[in-house]
Amino acid sequence: MTGYPLPPGSTIGIVGGGQLGRMLALAAARLGFRVAVLANAAGSPAGQVSAVEIVGRYDDPDAIARLAAVSDVLTFEFENVPASALARLEPGRIAPPGRALAISQDRFEEKTFLNAHGLETTAFAAIDTAADIAPALARFGAPALLKTRREGYDGKGQVWVHAASEADAAFAAIGARPAILEAKAPFVRELSVIAARGRDGAAAAYPIGENRHAGGILRTTRAPATVEPGEQADALRIATTLLHALDYVGVIGVELFQLADGALLVNEFAPRVHNTGHWTLDGCEVDQFEQHIRAVAGWPLGPTHALAQVEMTNLLGDEAAYWAALADDPTARLWLYGKTDAAPGRKMGHVNRLAPLGRA
Amino acid sequence: MTGYPLPPGSTIGIVGGGQLGRMLALAAARLGFRVAVLANAAGSPAGQVSAVEIVGRYDDPDAIARLAAVSDVLTFEFENVPASALARLEPGRIAPPGRALAISQDRFEEKTFLNAHGLETTAFAAIDTAADIAPALARFGAPALLKTRREGYDGKGQVWVHAASEADAAFAAIGARPAILEAKAPFVRELSVIAARGRDGAAAAYPIGENRHAGGILRTTRAPATVEPGEQADALRIATTLLHALDYVGVIGVELFQLADGALLVNEFAPRVHNTGHWTLDGCEVDQFEQHIRAVAGWPLGPTHALAQVEMTNLLGDEAAYWAALADDPTARLWLYGKTDAAPGRKMGHVNRLAPLGRA
Repeated sequence: MTGYPLPPGSTIGIVGGGQLGRMLALAAARLGFRVAVLANAAGSPAGQVSAVEIVGRYDDPDAIARLAAVSDVLTFEFENVPASALARLEPGRIAPPGRALAISQDRFEEKTFLNAHGLETTAFAAIDTAADIAPALARFGAPALLKTRREGYDGKGQVWVHAASEADAAFAAIGARPAILEAKAPFVRELSVIAARGRDGAAAAYPIGENRHAGGILRTTRAPATVEPGEQADALRIATTLLHALDYVGVIGVELFQLADGALLVNEFAPRVHNTGHWTLDGCEVDQFEQHIRAVAGWPLGPTHALAQVEMTNLLGDEAAYWAALADDPTARLWLYGKTDAAPGRKMGHVNRLAPLGRA
Repeated sequence: MTGYPLPPGSTIGIVGGGQLGRMLALAAARLGFRVAVLANAAGSPAGQVSAVEIVGRYDDPDAIARLAAVSDVLTFEFENVPASALARLEPGRIAPPGRALAISQDRFEEKTFLNAHGLETTAFAAIDTAADIAPALARFGAPALLKTRREGYDGKGQVWVHAASEADAAFAAIGARPAILEAKAPFVRELSVIAARGRDGAAAAYPIGENRHAGGILRTTRAPATVEPGEQADALRIATTLLHALDYVGVIGVELFQLADGALLVNEFAPRVHNTGHWTLDGCEVDQFEQHIRAVAGWPLGPTHALAQVEMTNLLGDEAAYWAALADDPTARLWLYGKTDAAPGRKMGHVNRLAPLGRA
């Protein structure tokens, strides 16, 4: 039986060997923890900076069991770990809790859960067959976004539907799988809030970030975003409601749509550290990765205020080839993920550019 | 032949597996480098966060050769690597250069080198036998500090001599080895400057830190220290003179004595990242560890200005047992080194406490 808070020297097991795992491992090291990772190939971004790298499939309960055997607590860096792979673990051995993972894995369940807890989303409908599309469009209008209920990220597995006549083609385009149709949110800005909840039930949120996507992939986050005090409070209320409703432990990323009247809708949440929180690495005393490790290890949460104004820019694919120019730019704090294959759109690193607070 | 700047994905080899190597490895990872370390035992603080850990002796040329075989460039985290162990390497393969290492390993050569380049030190004399002590005392007075010429750190291998009559006992106390006698410096403060020089010959220094030692071991550094503009310029001049005179590449730590009239004497320099530079981890955009990796890899140096006022406190021996209280202190940024054996006086971690600049 693991006792919390975990003392330094304990081993944090991370399911996933990518850049989020890498930055979690770096944060864990700072606090004196050992790290073990489960990666799908040797020499993974996270494995390069961890004491133990287990190579295996994320959906293999045996691989998870091998990771658990050398770890005092488990966490994960991505939300597509099947619940079945975690079923053998005692509940308290993994954080965030499996229930948050399960809800986030199904877009219909996720939005239903949000609405049930008073958190507004755009209108949506479950789509089990192409025939479900027309009635949903009739209810909340076109265009609407058809997404698979499960999996898909960074814009994959989704297609716009402009009229009921496109229903069959759209449903085929996403693989004729269980889906959700979402009304187009008339948003003016994409925002996000990175928040955390400790094992003691305390919650804290970082200042809101403002995000810009292109082709479904995050390009930049500017934080703290210029928002009204009421909007920051609103984001905090949303995050806190969600954290407590999920009996959550760890960092959560909540993507928000802001409407013209300032109201915030929840787009989706990710039960993990989040790309839109990378600005905290250089903008806060305790970044989202340390915050997550603190929560998972049962430590108190750290402060979340911003020390600087940050613009985070993802380096995608061969943009990482500009490392030399970025290294030469005194305003650029460079983070590279140790990936060798710069496939188009692949997240290779990011840059944080700092300015004094208040100078957006 | 290695070409500089080294691209991300290159491997930095670090001789030494302790906390300085650990923090160098974390900084290297941030920039996308792989790290290999040579440690004297498996599971070392640095090895826990590195892709490759080679276990061997630091004075074994074969172990160094094994590290070099998997590394694009070598550096070291402590200055007692014997020159003989590095003799087989091509000169440009290791940074800082072997000459800086060799000079720093012999206190007599070090002070002679400093004086030869116009950098003032306290008066000193070479002591080869106990009989050399009396004439030196006659020249610059008692008490004076007798230190072995080589090795010894954190107050080990040194003894105060209060009168010529103590010469035999003092020389015996330090093991009757080649030594140096140093006049007592009438200093009012212990300061240090952490500086760096890139492969392009550019030099940069961080703001001066003010240090407090106890029992020969560093307890706290406060930085930026409250100094006159002329004193910061003086420290910069000292560091820059030394860096260029050594044709240096990497970070150097220069310990200074400040006299009552404000003048700065050089106490000693360490050809590596330095405990009195740990405040930069939370007080600067680019900390001393990233700065060192940048220099060694042939990247441009980063900015060195302070973002905050920092007080760094070392956690020695069982002081690390206070981790839970420190984790609960929102003003404390905690760094723990992954060491299991908390021997008395052993550096287990440190804490940086931040305040806005100008509030010392």
